[in-house]
Amino acid sequence: MTTDNSTSHDSPQGASADSPLDRFIAVIPAGGVGTRLWPLSRAAAPKFLHDLTGSGSTLLRATYDRLEPLAGSRVLVVTGTAHREAVCRQLPELDESDLVLESEPKDSGAAIGLAAAILYERDPDAIMGSFAADQVISPDGLFQDAVREAIHAAAAGKIVTIGIKPTHPATGFGYIRAGDKLSVTGAPNAHTVVEFVEKPSEEVAQQYLDSGEYVWNAGMFVAPVSLMLKHLEANQPELFAGLQEIAKAWDTPLRDEVTARVWPTLPKIAIDYAVAEPAAAAGDVAVVPGTFRWDDVGDFASVGRLNSAKEVDDVTVIGEGARVFTENASGVVVTDTKRVIALIGIKDVVIVDTPDALLVTTKAHSQRVKAAVDALKASGDTDVL
Amino acid sequence: MTTDNSTSHDSPQGASADSPLDRFIAVIPAGGVGTRLWPLSRAAAPKFLHDLTGSGSTLLRATYDRLEPLAGSRVLVVTGTAHREAVCRQLPELDESDLVLESEPKDSGAAIGLAAAILYERDPDAIMGSFAADQVISPDGLFQDAVREAIHAAAAGKIVTIGIKPTHPATGFGYIRAGDKLSVTGAPNAHTVVEFVEKPSEEVAQQYLDSGEYVWNAGMFVAPVSLMLKHLEANQPELFAGLQEIAKAWDTPLRDEVTARVWPTLPKIAIDYAVAEPAAAAGDVAVVPGTFRWDDVGDFASVGRLNSAKEVDDVTVIGEGARVFTENASGVVVTDTKRVIALIGIKDVVIVDTPDALLVTTKAHSQRVKAAVDALKASGDTDVL
Repeated sequence: MTTDNSTSHDSPQGASADSPLDRFIAVIPAGGVGTRLWPLSRAAAPKFLHDLTGSGSTLLRATYDRLEPLAGSRVLVVTGTAHREAVCRQLPELDESDLVLESEPKDSGAAIGLAAAILYERDPDAIMGSFAADQVISPDGLFQDAVREAIHAAAAGKIVTIGIKPTHPATGFGYIRAGDKLSVTGAPNAHTVVEFVEKPSEEVAQQYLDSGEYVWNAGMFVAPVSLMLKHLEANQPELFAGLQEIAKAWDTPLRDEVTARVWPTLPKIAIDYAVAEPAAAAGDVAVVPGTFRWDDVGDFASVGRLNSAKEVDDVTVIGEGARVFTENASGVVVTDTKRVIALIGIKDVVIVDTPDALLVTTKAHSQRVKAAVDALKASGDTDVL
Repeated sequence: MTTDNSTSHDSPQGASADSPLDRFIAVIPAGGVGTRLWPLSRAAAPKFLHDLTGSGSTLLRATYDRLEPLAGSRVLVVTGTAHREAVCRQLPELDESDLVLESEPKDSGAAIGLAAAILYERDPDAIMGSFAADQVISPDGLFQDAVREAIHAAAAGKIVTIGIKPTHPATGFGYIRAGDKLSVTGAPNAHTVVEFVEKPSEEVAQQYLDSGEYVWNAGMFVAPVSLMLKHLEANQPELFAGLQEIAKAWDTPLRDEVTARVWPTLPKIAIDYAVAEPAAAAGDVAVVPGTFRWDDVGDFASVGRLNSAKEVDDVTVIGEGARVFTENASGVVVTDTKRVIALIGIKDVVIVDTPDALLVTTKAHSQRVKAAVDALKASGDTDVL
């Protein structure tokens, strides 16, 4: 990790001398079990560690590669201690000091707040961009365009979310209501944010869509770390103080000791409540609309949609070395075994085949997978969760 | 093996001195891969080695136990060399000289003909009863009643099939047309057989059902071994000669040598064509109707029917240590793994879970499983067949 951007290795594409782009550092929160993707995604192997799109890259690796043209190697990953090895294997270029390990989950306020605090200690002028490791985005060029605009808007003193232009009245996402246009060089599409709104009913979602004022909240944002910390301090002083203590010790020999002592004491709060909403109320939040394709891979139906290229007859097959035979069948097969899987006369089926657990459902029911996980939890069969 | 029935161990129930029942010896052909039950049933582990009814007994063991009250330990098993170990494990009481191993499959003519020839060498007055190892029968008492009648009719000089009273116009079985009643003491329900007929159309099957003259051909018969051999000699002299050669060597040190030399040269023909049909034409075949429940476990739909007692919600679960979780699901799960299997919102599904192969189909399509096996064969994936 360095704040000296003069080396070619660290210099991102498209950054000229003194450009805000030079101040950009990517943060990748890699958390979340992805319960609705059980049994593929589970506590020991959450979804960001899987290649769910058949691209040849895991979601984490693809997220890193998508940010590399903007951030070079200036990337911080925040994940659980359990995933340390897997993350290092997938991102061998990551320095140990750029891997933030959560000994226990503390929600996004602590995770992203700590990243901001560490980056501030290294460079108070840093602009961070936070992008979850479990999302699927294409094409990368449109994403990078949006992030560049967001960096310019952030340099003008905003916390800048990247909203997704809605394609249908989705009820599964929060929405962001855009206000007036900003006048920031390099950010022609940036607008102020009027408010964040929770997941709406379908009727309300349709009104949002019709109005043209709303975008989906994809949880992506770009912001000066100093502005993040300012709002965090104002709204969550206890959390702020703890994070400061860890951050000051981070690049010293005391890192592990202080982290181990302080992290467990931190309050749990989502970054939305700790920073984004109060900052929006204070007029400090902007939005840049993203026109790229975005999917949070929430269930196996979306896994199927994202893999339309790899079809055996009408069955989407995901898994290296999969041996799938179909007759008069359609649906999705996700396998991380080498077993022969034969599908006969069954439609819209979703099959997830792992060494110790098998899920069989339908595309229409794939949102209900969480219920199975809850049932297993209740029955004590936690070995496969 | 002994033809001296005076020991209590060998003496079957209900046999009085000089009763034909004393001459009875059971033959169990244990062959047939059961392709329509893939991947549970396969070349290395055919269906008769599985507990498909959730009874705690495999089909083979249940067949043996069902015959024990009639035959005592006088049982011959005919199977492939590949299944020697598995059969001996399931039937530890079987003498080596009562296990006939086919080095290669030669159809039922050779298999049952050799049993007849071996038994004739031991006792020319023996009455054999042949009962395939892969059928499900209940209750045992009604079956045994029918076999006793058949033994009495056989002692009167008949090859006696046990036909199943049809419950519906099945098109998947051959039928037997009964003629006049026989007058044999101990066999009040025995009739002559007019003819054997092949699997009919549904319309014809309905006519058979309505006429009351037809029963299903379940492939079960009881006959004096001498009468079997007489018809075999007349119709298949080459096969007869080969079987005689093996049978004469069977209970001598030359058994293996002669069998290895002669068996591969034997012609392949079904016992129906080699004996039953010509014998029927000669007026030597009778039928005793069986009123017991009978199922040849032809596919997973029948596996489901046979296991109605073991239900998780609406899902029939077969397999020791199965861990099945369902929500809004119905169908059949057969597993010989300990994997957790979760079914969500899927109806009438058939899932067969084995360590190296998984089948997912529906009850309606379970007859099509053979097609998957053929496709695997064609593709060279024979490791799982």
